[in-house]
Amino acid sequence: MKTLAVLGSTGSIGTQTLDIVRKYPDKLKVKLLAASKISKTLLKQIEEFKPEYVYTVEKVDIKGVRNLYGEEGLIQLSKLDIDLFINGIAGIAGIKPTYLLLKENKKLITANKEAIICLGEILKEKYSSIFPIDSEHSAIFQCLLTGRKKDVERIVLTASGGPFREKPLEEFEHITVEEALNHPKWKMGKKVTIDSATLMNKGLEVIEAHYLFDLPYEKIDVVIHPDSIIHGIVEFVDGSMTANLSYPDMRIPIAYAISYPERWDIEAKKLCLWEIKNLSFYKPDYKKFPLLKIAKEAGKKGSFYPTVLTVADELAVNEFLKGHIKFTEIPVLVEKVLEVANFQKPQTLEDIMFIITETEKVFKDIILKVLN
Amino acid sequence: MKTLAVLGSTGSIGTQTLDIVRKYPDKLKVKLLAASKISKTLLKQIEEFKPEYVYTVEKVDIKGVRNLYGEEGLIQLSKLDIDLFINGIAGIAGIKPTYLLLKENKKLITANKEAIICLGEILKEKYSSIFPIDSEHSAIFQCLLTGRKKDVERIVLTASGGPFREKPLEEFEHITVEEALNHPKWKMGKKVTIDSATLMNKGLEVIEAHYLFDLPYEKIDVVIHPDSIIHGIVEFVDGSMTANLSYPDMRIPIAYAISYPERWDIEAKKLCLWEIKNLSFYKPDYKKFPLLKIAKEAGKKGSFYPTVLTVADELAVNEFLKGHIKFTEIPVLVEKVLEVANFQKPQTLEDIMFIITETEKVFKDIILKVLN
Repeated sequence: MKTLAVLGSTGSIGTQTLDIVRKYPDKLKVKLLAASKISKTLLKQIEEFKPEYVYTVEKVDIKGVRNLYGEEGLIQLSKLDIDLFINGIAGIAGIKPTYLLLKENKKLITANKEAIICLGEILKEKYSSIFPIDSEHSAIFQCLLTGRKKDVERIVLTASGGPFREKPLEEFEHITVEEALNHPKWKMGKKVTIDSATLMNKGLEVIEAHYLFDLPYEKIDVVIHPDSIIHGIVEFVDGSMTANLSYPDMRIPIAYAISYPERWDIEAKKLCLWEIKNLSFYKPDYKKFPLLKIAKEAGKKGSFYPTVLTVADELAVNEFLKGHIKFTEIPVLVEKVLEVANFQKPQTLEDIMFIITETEKVFKDIILKVLN
Repeated sequence: MKTLAVLGSTGSIGTQTLDIVRKYPDKLKVKLLAASKISKTLLKQIEEFKPEYVYTVEKVDIKGVRNLYGEEGLIQLSKLDIDLFINGIAGIAGIKPTYLLLKENKKLITANKEAIICLGEILKEKYSSIFPIDSEHSAIFQCLLTGRKKDVERIVLTASGGPFREKPLEEFEHITVEEALNHPKWKMGKKVTIDSATLMNKGLEVIEAHYLFDLPYEKIDVVIHPDSIIHGIVEFVDGSMTANLSYPDMRIPIAYAISYPERWDIEAKKLCLWEIKNLSFYKPDYKKFPLLKIAKEAGKKGSFYPTVLTVADELAVNEFLKGHIKFTEIPVLVEKVLEVANFQKPQTLEDIMFIITETEKVFKDIILKVLN
């Protein structure tokens, strides 16, 4: 029996995690649920999974559970004796819990790429206790099992190319929020769906892969693969490649991370290649999707740049989602913030948090000019 | 420094093995070369690699090397203190050396599927010391590293489909030897090239996989993949698949078997997926390629059937290569031999050799009727 803490339990990753717990009640026990605030969904989850602890940002009173809350609650949470912490928190809100859990050497299952990226410069030595559940990084993790790290020639992250792969560049400025939220292959949260449409998601994943697998950027490539069947590839020096394939279903990498080194049947749809018939591959188009390049460059620079990139993108995506800016203005804003930003190389969590709040100020200044 | 014995050194697998030795003279030392008879190629190889031993079927006198020969020499060979024995002998001629080497618990690198199949019923418990270099089985070996054996849902062997995948069935009886020897993707010996054209090769590989990986036939599938880029796939119970990819180049699986657990750069062409653009998959056509089905059924029956199948096919292919029979008569002959053959379940090498010679007689009877 493995005990679990599910952070962001009402979100996309959280609910899919609980779906797996539902299938394996004899193997998994939820000991903690965490969400930003109390909600009908959270209350239902508490009723169903009967956790010992519930974390919320503000104090709440729920019968039968111990409520951890606020900053202090987060610290208490990170010290709990729980086998696996699943971090399904979206965006930079996940940084602090990620930091605390890694500091406590907890086994952390996470798709929170923003946290992995922002903490990469200061906490990389703890990253071996991270089990990634981004489908691409889960794929790379699995493929790396087929050889020695030193024999890796490069890794290849696949990208669906998002909904606008075939749209002419001229039409990009008219892209609506609804169009951008309509991802052809993956059902995900809003932020990551927009990031997939701009290919920023893949840029962030390149940086994430750099920190997670301790590989130089020269060894991390991206290929567009609209079918979203191959999720990641490791190429070895002998010319051999190992790839991970499945239908796009986030439950597969989540279940793998939880069940590892076992694999459990989660009734995922089995892949039949002659039904699929074709797998296709394209070179990324940096003109249509400048953020992929911008992200890689920020990654290569290291220091404070990955954090600034992450924050600027999250804020720009929010502005787009609110209808304040055009789709094509997302990369423009991110690039402007990166140009202006200038900080000391971060050494501590405080440094990272400082870079985040300062970047938010820089962003605010720039967006005000854009909106006026 | 690893010491090697190269059996069938003048053949396709043998020469490619020596090509790898040439690239890594500091890591590999050829201690023995074996060929059926002395030839210019063998003499050149002896001069270049300076082995301590040379095996030939008949006694020969070569300056500076110890000649092992005949039955007795084969036994001496199997007892030599050499790290890796590479068996590049084609067809059923490889059975005896395979048997002797496995009995001596030698590390055996082999693509000799006929030997693996014929000895499967009597020597399977020794098969863990076999390292397969058929590209498909090497692929499966690698993919199996990403999970526990008990979590395997099935394995999938890919088949190029050979040169006649798109040829209409009506034209099959006019297929010439030259056409059948013109494999679109792989450069191989004649026997295996014809087997690839009939898809018998894939049928034999299914049986080989059954014995090598100890998997029931229900868990071994075949998919037609004309690009010959994916060589094998393992599907796990969680819906995840691991695949092995490379350009078709036998040196890759040979080098992998030799260098394992390392991987060495052998200057193989690196795979670029957006240059490849497309990977396609089809269901096998059992009407055009009945031998795939015949082979699977013989495999499922077990006992003497896999041996009879192997011998009948080798003989039928020889008749086709000599221009005695049509392409479409190969499966007819094999099926007829399988119908007539009836033996005790083999227990010993003698039983296997008896089945082989008796099957040869059965075949001779049948072919005489066909040719008259």
